[in-house]
Amino acid sequence: MAEIFPASFASDNAAPATPEVMQALIEANQGSAPAYGNDIFTARLEKRFAEIFERKVAVLPVSTGTAANALALAACAQPWGLIYCHAGAHVIEHETGAPTFFSGARLVPLEGAHGKIAIEALSAALDRAGFGVVHESQPQAVSITQATEVGTTYALNEIRAIADLAHARGLKLHMDGARFANAVATLGVSPAEATWRSGVDILSFGATKNGAIAAEAIVVFEPALEPNLGFLRKRAGHLMSKQRYASAQIEAGLRDGLWLTWANHANEMARRLTAGLTPFGAAAILHPVEANEVFARLPELALAGLHADGFEFHRRPAPNRQVVRLVTSWRTRSEEVDSFVARALHHAALKGVSRQSL
Amino acid sequence: MAEIFPASFASDNAAPATPEVMQALIEANQGSAPAYGNDIFTARLEKRFAEIFERKVAVLPVSTGTAANALALAACAQPWGLIYCHAGAHVIEHETGAPTFFSGARLVPLEGAHGKIAIEALSAALDRAGFGVVHESQPQAVSITQATEVGTTYALNEIRAIADLAHARGLKLHMDGARFANAVATLGVSPAEATWRSGVDILSFGATKNGAIAAEAIVVFEPALEPNLGFLRKRAGHLMSKQRYASAQIEAGLRDGLWLTWANHANEMARRLTAGLTPFGAAAILHPVEANEVFARLPELALAGLHADGFEFHRRPAPNRQVVRLVTSWRTRSEEVDSFVARALHHAALKGVSRQSL
Amino acid sequence: MAEIFPASFASDNAAPATPEVMQALIEANQGSAPAYGNDIFTARLEKRFAEIFERKVAVLPVSTGTAANALALAACAQPWGLIYCHAGAHVIEHETGAPTFFSGARLVPLEGAHGKIAIEALSAALDRAGFGVVHESQPQAVSITQATEVGTTYALNEIRAIADLAHARGLKLHMDGARFANAVATLGVSPAEATWRSGVDILSFGATKNGAIAAEAIVVFEPALEPNLGFLRKRAGHLMSKQRYASAQIEAGLRDGLWLTWANHANEMARRLTAGLTPFGAAAILHPVEANEVFARLPELALAGLHADGFEFHRRPAPNRQVVRLVTSWRTRSEEVDSFVARALHHAALKGVSRQSL
Amino acid sequence: MAEIFPASFASDNAAPATPEVMQALIEANQGSAPAYGNDIFTARLEKRFAEIFERKVAVLPVSTGTAANALALAACAQPWGLIYCHAGAHVIEHETGAPTFFSGARLVPLEGAHGKIAIEALSAALDRAGFGVVHESQPQAVSITQATEVGTTYALNEIRAIADLAHARGLKLHMDGARFANAVATLGVSPAEATWRSGVDILSFGATKNGAIAAEAIVVFEPALEPNLGFLRKRAGHLMSKQRYASAQIEAGLRDGLWLTWANHANEMARRLTAGLTPFGAAAILHPVEANEVFARLPELALAGLHADGFEFHRRPAPNRQVVRLVTSWRTRSEEVDSFVARALHHAALKGVSRQSL
Repeated sequence: MAEIFPASFASDNAAPATPEVMQALIEANQGSAPAYGNDIFTARLEKRFAEIFERKVAVLPVSTGTAANALALAACAQPWGLIYCHAGAHVIEHETGAPTFFSGARLVPLEGAHGKIAIEALSAALDRAGFGVVHESQPQAVSITQATEVGTTYALNEIRAIADLAHARGLKLHMDGARFANAVATLGVSPAEATWRSGVDILSFGATKNGAIAAEAIVVFEPALEPNLGFLRKRAGHLMSKQRYASAQIEAGLRDGLWLTWANHANEMARRLTAGLTPFGAAAILHPVEANEVFARLPELALAGLHADGFEFHRRPAPNRQVVRLVTSWRTRSEEVDSFVARALHHAALKGVSRQSL
Repeated sequence: MAEIFPASFASDNAAPATPEVMQALIEANQGSAPAYGNDIFTARLEKRFAEIFERKVAVLPVSTGTAANALALAACAQPWGLIYCHAGAHVIEHETGAPTFFSGARLVPLEGAHGKIAIEALSAALDRAGFGVVHESQPQAVSITQATEVGTTYALNEIRAIADLAHARGLKLHMDGARFANAVATLGVSPAEATWRSGVDILSFGATKNGAIAAEAIVVFEPALEPNLGFLRKRAGHLMSKQRYASAQIEAGLRDGLWLTWANHANEMARRLTAGLTPFGAAAILHPVEANEVFARLPELALAGLHADGFEFHRRPAPNRQVVRLVTSWRTRSEEVDSFVARALHHAALKGVSRQSL
Repeated sequence: MAEIFPASFASDNAAPATPEVMQALIEANQGSAPAYGNDIFTARLEKRFAEIFERKVAVLPVSTGTAANALALAACAQPWGLIYCHAGAHVIEHETGAPTFFSGARLVPLEGAHGKIAIEALSAALDRAGFGVVHESQPQAVSITQATEVGTTYALNEIRAIADLAHARGLKLHMDGARFANAVATLGVSPAEATWRSGVDILSFGATKNGAIAAEAIVVFEPALEPNLGFLRKRAGHLMSKQRYASAQIEAGLRDGLWLTWANHANEMARRLTAGLTPFGAAAILHPVEANEVFARLPELALAGLHADGFEFHRRPAPNRQVVRLVTSWRTRSEEVDSFVARALHHAALKGVSRQSL
Repeated sequence: MAEIFPASFASDNAAPATPEVMQALIEANQGSAPAYGNDIFTARLEKRFAEIFERKVAVLPVSTGTAANALALAACAQPWGLIYCHAGAHVIEHETGAPTFFSGARLVPLEGAHGKIAIEALSAALDRAGFGVVHESQPQAVSITQATEVGTTYALNEIRAIADLAHARGLKLHMDGARFANAVATLGVSPAEATWRSGVDILSFGATKNGAIAAEAIVVFEPALEPNLGFLRKRAGHLMSKQRYASAQIEAGLRDGLWLTWANHANEMARRLTAGLTPFGAAAILHPVEANEVFARLPELALAGLHADGFEFHRRPAPNRQVVRLVTSWRTRSEEVDSFVARALHHAALKGVSRQSL
């Protein structure tokens, strides 16, 4: 019997930082540096982002994705505002109200297949809204997640369609990019095309899941959204005194396209996992695998066996206990994926396909 | 002429992290770990804090001191509450409203010499307050800063007096311990005596200024304050996904009393600075030097010269431009202090005192 | 041709106050009275409510229904809470975010026929909720509207089922009773049965739509919800200095069961309208008419003609312009109803049914 | 012994409404009227205010002074803002945090004699403020109370000085005019001069204390403050459905200058009271009597006796129990004042001065 490599597919948050990020921390730790972002690491980060996005941008590092999202949305919406998002979006389902706490606005859940807002759902919601009617909250922003919570990605024309609809009615477009790198890697487009050239006004750029220890950045494309963000961030306790370390972490990934290299690897591992699970049937994979997450419905025998083997993953709550979320990361090894697949097939008494045939 | 060691006395936030903290980060970076605080580093931190404080405590790591303060105060006060603090406290002067954002409560500035709330001022404020009167905000918390913003410390009996007054009227006592280590090092008492044994209900335990890169902890002594803190923290975007790194930073300092060793060194450097400035006269030192900050009024000639030499420090705004804040840290070297002193005397054309005589 | 009595069916808010309410205002306007609710009219109101609800209750008069709802919900839910309501409820659709402003909590829209929360929808939502999970907002309240926004009423067993489900999971049950009188009149049960005996914890008792000028009351059945309401109300600017006038308005209706007499009349007028519209076919009436609102789909010819005649009513936005909301009130006269019906039939070239046959 | 007319000097909120206000309510109660301010009474009120203030203004009726203040300040200040006010102002001392709840901003108490902000205090506070510094809340508004909480008034040049200072630094000027009529009556200037011509940007116009039952109006002079007020008001539950009644109350006072007639009478009664108390010595009157409030220090014997006689008034809390606030209103009668004075002198065994000599 082959060796088992029990690995964690529980979350990309479970992964450690990359060696390059650790090295950047060590380099940033030389001597004193001005506090609160007036350091050379932050200046360098801003410069790097301007290159990558091919334009001037404002950049505000923070320590969590929830902070990035909530602050970005607070820049887009007023207390009597509405923010449209997918019904399963992190901002509405897993941030304990942070976007509303920061902005005052109400999140409106919209439907759509595979974690993506259906343009028809957004259009219908806007048609129903009482623009200018004092009794109703006012549509002010749309938030899309790229890659989505279920590991899919919006195509550029899908983003553009949402952006056009939003902008035509005066709404801003926010992109929750906790897994932005994974999406860009999959789409094979430039970061500029993936964002402002497709109509995105403000981006939560995620680094934590992609090899950092705790670093995200709000990247502002629409200048009108920038002026108050500094005050909003400080008032929320999200201005780090020794910001150089957060900036250095993010910047480490931006060198030589490492952020995309890491994301590409994670995506590749997700695809490998998907391919390996082919014997369970096409229906076993619940969403197109376009980033670093695989949602699969597997036999109880397989899941129990994998768990006993020491693999880690999240199962959905009853009655969907057989649905698992498998998340890969920059450090997921192909042996781990292959071992997971082999053991799953073994426990389910299925026969694998040879890698050559995939 | 002696060599000049131009150093930054601008802030302890300007200092890098200690080697031990960096080492702890590297150690924490091994393999995967459960996200959101379910990791062994956080568990170890909680255990260590329980030992140090000689009792069970709840511990919530966050990335900034403002977050720690605002969350701790939100646990103490309701939206119609009043929180009493010194008029110069960080919570009221330098957090852009964060404690009110998180709690809804109003901060009430109180006077007192050398950055400490005068017990008479608190007593008078409570006497004026309309307890139970629906037209008035309700007294619910007192926040003291230890060490204070001006580098002084509350003696244990001073804390106890404030705590007794607060508790007698139903208020909670919060301690902003951004420089808690410096205070404990100076007082020479146990952390338990410095806090809950003197009546403190909740503490913002600072590590960032004392050798970490971005790590503070809310330490809860009064169990009634704990239940909602987890939700408050997440809703504010302050629950770090890879919390192991924050916990590891703090825990690094707690080994072998390092946190106090570092703070002691910083304090020692502040005292050395104070002693060196003796030739400027007793009145030149504005507050008792009981932690790692020296507030001095120096001749313009000296300040201009030091600036030209490359020393960094903050001057007060006009009309107090000659008042400087000098902050030392774990890494301030005695040569730097001596060089600062020597150059100050040189520029002011004063003669130094020999170190032997101090 | 019969005389036309063009009347407003636009809203019960368009109706004036009853003579009895005006008389009560005049009576309340004698001499001076203690401010802020320490007057005999408020004391009398509390006594009267205790009689009507057959138990001790706390009563807080306010000037608007939105205030009553938002304050009542703020007593039930914390900032990290979830409040479940029907997708078409006033609290989520027509209060511009007031309940979230006052409580911090998120409103979760639930489906259900005829404006009533489907118990299955609530049950499913609670099953999906992450009780105790720090990443998710916490279920804390359910808000039902009685009578609903579409003129229907919850039967007692429907309320009880929702209450049991809510209470079993620790949620409070709020009833938006902007048209509570209309519902009680229809149900033919006691106010106690209609509320706390069926599990309602807190009620927004509406009087404005039912003959007052500006007076609603928060009625608290669950004592645990009461302590902070006084502070919440004052902090929201909803404690009236000359509260005697608001109390007197409400109390005027509570004498001799007038509030139910008025509501009964409005309901009767709605039923008369419904009966008169029979020739348009059963499908023309969109919801069971159980209070003082009729939702009807009428031919464009009829609507245009009625409008030209001077009748007032709200049409739904496109593409549902033929759907009208017709609201009756304590002062709607049968001639007005009959005239509306006759003209509608006339414009649509339909033949009416004789009143005898109804 | 002369007849005793025991009257209430407790508050102008204790007074009933004027006959003209009651008559206006009755007139407004004819037939149906559009809800939410789309009625002819509100239209007429806006027209009347435009005449009185000699310019176009936006007018938003609300039911309480706290609502008017909190909404007006929310139009002036952002969540990271500072609002300067007198330390004894209603907005900071007696509104349980409403202005902060509505705006998010922090109220900063300033000193000044006789309830008026000292220009030097404001100037010093602005000099200390860190404009543009992200760590500090930002100065955004000044709120002055006219007439003040202690019955004094700002002279036009005092308002202008504050306005100029505020505007020069980008702050807005709000006037809490709960007793605006009393101030205008005393100053003998036009409402326009008393407000926008002296630099006031937004006014809380009080009617409740001056003869109404529950009606105040936000009057907006600076157009930039208007756009969001409609949403802010509705979201706070302060948009009344049957707004015609509130508008009618205010408008009743604006006919034939009645509002100033009523205020003049109240002021006259306050002056008569002051004159009558002359035998207690000049020091007995604590503040210049420039509106309808008298603050007097009277012998315990006098106070106890007056209380036993049935007069109503508020005494200050210990240790100032001998200080009383005496408030007159549109309906205070000269016999009541004279009776109060005579009895006070009687109880204190003092001899009165003849009215001729005053």
